[in-house]
Amino acid sequence: MSDHITITGLVATQPRHIVTSEGLPITSFRLASTQRRFDTSAEKWIDGETNWYTVTAFRQLATHTAESVDKSDRILVVGKLRIREWESDDRTGTNIEVEAEAIGHDLTWGTGVFTRTHGAAITAESEEAAEPVTTAATQR
Amino acid sequence: MSDHITITGLVATQPRHIVTSEGLPITSFRLASTQRRFDTSAEKWIDGETNWYTVTAFRQLATHTAESVDKSDRILVVGKLRIREWESDDRTGTNIEVEAEAIGHDLTWGTGVFTRTHGAAITAESEEAAEPVTTAATQR
Amino acid sequence: MSDHITITGLVATQPRHIVTSEGLPITSFRLASTQRRFDTSAEKWIDGETNWYTVTAFRQLATHTAESVDKSDRILVVGKLRIREWESDDRTGTNIEVEAEAIGHDLTWGTGVFTRTHGAAITAESEEAAEPVTTAATQR
Amino acid sequence: MSDHITITGLVATQPRHIVTSEGLPITSFRLASTQRRFDTSAEKWIDGETNWYTVTAFRQLATHTAESVDKSDRILVVGKLRIREWESDDRTGTNIEVEAEAIGHDLTWGTGVFTRTHGAAITAESEEAAEPVTTAATQR
Repeated sequence: MSDHITITGLVATQPRHIVTSEGLPITSFRLASTQRRFDTSAEKWIDGETNWYTVTAFRQLATHTAESVDKSDRILVVGKLRIREWESDDRTGTNIEVEAEAIGHDLTWGTGVFTRTHGAAITAESEEAAEPVTTAATQR
Repeated sequence: MSDHITITGLVATQPRHIVTSEGLPITSFRLASTQRRFDTSAEKWIDGETNWYTVTAFRQLATHTAESVDKSDRILVVGKLRIREWESDDRTGTNIEVEAEAIGHDLTWGTGVFTRTHGAAITAESEEAAEPVTTAATQR
Repeated sequence: MSDHITITGLVATQPRHIVTSEGLPITSFRLASTQRRFDTSAEKWIDGETNWYTVTAFRQLATHTAESVDKSDRILVVGKLRIREWESDDRTGTNIEVEAEAIGHDLTWGTGVFTRTHGAAITAESEEAAEPVTTAATQR
Repeated sequence: MSDHITITGLVATQPRHIVTSEGLPITSFRLASTQRRFDTSAEKWIDGETNWYTVTAFRQLATHTAESVDKSDRILVVGKLRIREWESDDRTGTNIEVEAEAIGHDLTWGTGVFTRTHGAAITAESEEAAEPVTTAATQR
């Protein structure tokens, strides 16, 4: 089992998109996730500390993210966490990376227009038709 | 700790939006999540069985979801699972509900245009300015 | 991406353990997860509604769970959710299953004694030795 | 929404337990989570890179963890991720902390004996009694 993480946050750098010599699209950007907590004495929500991540997407998700996500957008990300130490010259540091399995704009903070480019719409119809009758009854 | 769930799936019904007499916005729709698995003999990905959910959003997220999400969109949802038995006349059934904490279009399947309506852009600037220098160095 | 779920709850039936004719160990039991919420008028935590699951484990996890978990234990489970409609004679219903990736006793509710049967202890030593010096420094 | 994470890993340091002057029990230890992947050319599972965390538990969970968890145990942890930069003299670094919501021994790797110290067993009986008949039918 991988280290599975779910994050909502603010895109802090304009996403950078590259295609490797093998033809693999990769998109990455910095994400700031600020915890909010209710201050009972002040009776309002206040910002807490911020977690910083490097989010990386591959393949189709990378291409669509590069076309769709801009700096200062609010997004949600589901993925695997990877923590890596780095060293260069006399400096050391830690990079906290999320390998994204799914990315979407966070509709708590705004509205979105979606253009589906993969998977025929007919899939929706056929899947819907397959919904069991008993479950559908709970809708009424 | 609540029963915490992460789902990607297909919106199977047009979202319904209501505002209660107390002024609470609520949006709900059916979501179909189909597991895909790699068939090694056929050497291709095939659709497995489908999980069906009723997704419900409240407040700001409800309003934005109603304006943004349409039937046959691909989305990702993070939330709490609630399983409820129901009974009416001589019928019984089970409703599997996700109370959404966050909803976004799934950028694996298409592109999205986001319009941020809440939170000033200046927040982005100030948060970015606060990024620690040592972490920023990992970007280079 | 599978429908990924995290649950804490009460084991409601004694786990049943079988080994298939192919030699695959399977253990399953019912799990009740009761949401607790703070009642502000009564100023205390009260039990909310209960989610019921069938938890299923395979292979090594199945064998250890059968030896370790009893009815009325408190556990935590990480796994994939599978929702299946069933029909028999004139009855229909819904089974909500969690295919467990990991199971453990929930140490919020009691104490546990663990006997490691897989993976040599030497792994712990060697992994520890590998901890980067810079990170270890944060411990002091 | 907090940065929600699920981890399985190896306890790399003996847990340290303190009680603050205000009477708050706190337990913390280092956890190493090594990703395993299937090497198709060698046809076996191999260890990948390792994520290192500081896991911290509070209150009842802290007390039980200190009594139950030892160095080189395999555990699973569900909690909130907190990333903090630190600086002392001329050194800087990053601490990656998981504030645990639940901890348990990972039954994939061994067996456990659990002693429940909180919550009367009668709760189990009453909850079980409350299981809806229709769902129970799926068990047969």
